[in-house]
Amino acid sequence: MAEERHIRSLEAAPSRIYGELCSGKTAKFDQKLVHLLTSAAEVFAAHGYEKASIRQVAQSAGVSLAGLYHYVRCKEELLFFMQYHTFGVLIERLEALLEKPAAPEAHLREMVSSHVHYLAEHLPELKLCTTELDSLQGEYYEKVLSRRQRYFDLTRGILKKIGRHSSRVDPTLATFYLFGMLNWLVMWFDPSRNEPGKISKSLVELFLSGYERASGPGGAA
Amino acid sequence: MAEERHIRSLEAAPSRIYGELCSGKTAKFDQKLVHLLTSAAEVFAAHGYEKASIRQVAQSAGVSLAGLYHYVRCKEELLFFMQYHTFGVLIERLEALLEKPAAPEAHLREMVSSHVHYLAEHLPELKLCTTELDSLQGEYYEKVLSRRQRYFDLTRGILKKIGRHSSRVDPTLATFYLFGMLNWLVMWFDPSRNEPGKISKSLVELFLSGYERASGPGGAA
Repeated sequence: MAEERHIRSLEAAPSRIYGELCSGKTAKFDQKLVHLLTSAAEVFAAHGYEKASIRQVAQSAGVSLAGLYHYVRCKEELLFFMQYHTFGVLIERLEALLEKPAAPEAHLREMVSSHVHYLAEHLPELKLCTTELDSLQGEYYEKVLSRRQRYFDLTRGILKKIGRHSSRVDPTLATFYLFGMLNWLVMWFDPSRNEPGKISKSLVELFLSGYERASGPGGAA
Repeated sequence: MAEERHIRSLEAAPSRIYGELCSGKTAKFDQKLVHLLTSAAEVFAAHGYEKASIRQVAQSAGVSLAGLYHYVRCKEELLFFMQYHTFGVLIERLEALLEKPAAPEAHLREMVSSHVHYLAEHLPELKLCTTELDSLQGEYYEKVLSRRQRYFDLTRGILKKIGRHSSRVDPTLATFYLFGMLNWLVMWFDPSRNEPGKISKSLVELFLSGYERASGPGGAA
């Protein structure tokens, strides 16, 4: 599993995690921390990030408050790790699929499928990545922004290759449109009613057909 | 101006406004209230809705706290009026353009253009409509939801007409994709760099070309 590899590739250093991130080392997210992040995502999604307390997260995760503080310093650090970890997994999966030789259209189909399937299994985390962009500050914000930008740039790279032959829509604009379609999923996707495979196929086919054939103005706006 | 007509068609009843909405009468949003809503949108967008105080809104609008309470009972009511008013204007504009006989593709182009131009002029309000869906409760939430649903349904009606002839993508899914592209604009649209006319053209041409020609699965997911 790409995710498990990602988790193992990060360094488990309870209470030193953030310091080591800042010093440029990677931090291992051990299973316990991933469990805490999942609980935090559910609590934040249910009560709203601003209103939720770190005590509610500890209760939901079944750990003591002291146990939680062993891993994170504050509520903001939980939100930071959640977003940092989520984009880390998404980037790792995208890089892995880009390593396989394929046409850029096939890469885009796989990217969208990977994203929608991960979202279907981690809806609270993805919702927080979408709606709580601005709740992080300083170094937390910068580190997440850097991964968001990397994910965006990798995707734009695929669209540039496709557009070189056929599209008149600026690849950067098209990437914003694609992420609009993907990110808005958190507002309506219902795992009990929607199949990730069907959704990702209809989304990417609509996008690809439109991107390859649109006759609108081509330059950046 | 459609917006001015909208404002006049609502009833200005300081401190009674919400009660009259609940009793089924419409409330006139006079110029003073629209000014307060604009100030509130800027304050909420700058500080975050949860963190912003009603005192900051009064200061930004240049009125006393007592003057502000003449119009609204609480911060949530400001957010309610802002969203209710914004969707009211968007619906009124959409209904007006649908009254003009035209092909559904032309109606969609006009809808997207109208939406993007309004967004470019009211970015803080549109951002709050997008990111603070869940900050309203009870009757506030229901009344805004009803207008959101009306706006969605009118747009889906256009896509249904287009899709009847040519699309294999479910119109409801396609409407979610279109609103994803439109709503995500609040995250990256920069009025000092992006021209609303160019953005709306490239967005709607990509969407329309994709919707009309996509060969993905057609059924609802």
